Amino acid sequence: MTPCVFCEIVAGQAPATVVQEWDDALAIVPLGPVVDGHTLVIPKQHVADFGENPEVSAATMRRAAELAAGEQPMNVITSRGREATQSVFHLHLHLLPRAENDGLALPWYSGRQGKRRQH
Amino acid sequence: MTPCVFCEIVAGQAPATVVQEWDDALAIVPLGPVVDGHTLVIPKQHVADFGENPEVSAATMRRAAELAAGEQPMNVITSRGREATQSVFHLHLHLLPRAENDGLALPWYSGRQGKRRQH
Repeated sequence: MTPCVFCEIVAGQAPATVVQEWDDALAIVPLGPVVDGHTLVIPKQHVADFGENPEVSAATMRRAAELAAGEQPMNVITSRGREATQSVFHLHLHLLPRAENDGLALPWYSGRQGKRRQH
Repeated sequence: MTPCVFCEIVAGQAPATVVQEWDDALAIVPLGPVVDGHTLVIPKQHVADFGENPEVSAATMRRAAELAAGEQPMNVITSRGREATQSVFHLHLHLLPRAENDGLALPWYSGRQGKRRQH
């Protein structure tokens, strides 16, 4: 079985910068943050993605919301499947602080924008 | 007080295509879906964003996870603040089905990619 790097971090067997720890989750700095403050919230229990376990997904969102209380503009993003950019198959919520003209894209500001349906 | 369009939808006072309804949440089709299957999961209780109420945010994530059970590649995205592309100030989780080469961007595939730090 391939080791799960997030399970290794939870177990203290792989290094990570831990932002916050709860009984059921960890907030860590990703290896390649795309903006300052980019943080991952991961459950301690291994689940592959948000759809696999609604209970754990809800608990992880609760921790993300607690961590990100306040008014800092922010996106929360999670992904399932390689086509959705998931690369570590242990549920993680990205917290991405945002700022005016920070150059980050979301799906609705992509090359497909011209195809966006009008209603 | 400005009426909240999602509260109006919850109250049945504004039209929407409802995908699923739970006691605490609704899944609806957004006005401008960017891909087929683009769905919003919104709590019935008005909260402005995910950080305002961890309890409601967790419950809304639970519903999103229930709705999206399975293996369809997908992103779940929520936003706080105009700088993060939030335009309706009632919490909503975007469910975005993904496919190979669908042309949708995420922040880590943006113009900033060249600035991504290497570790």
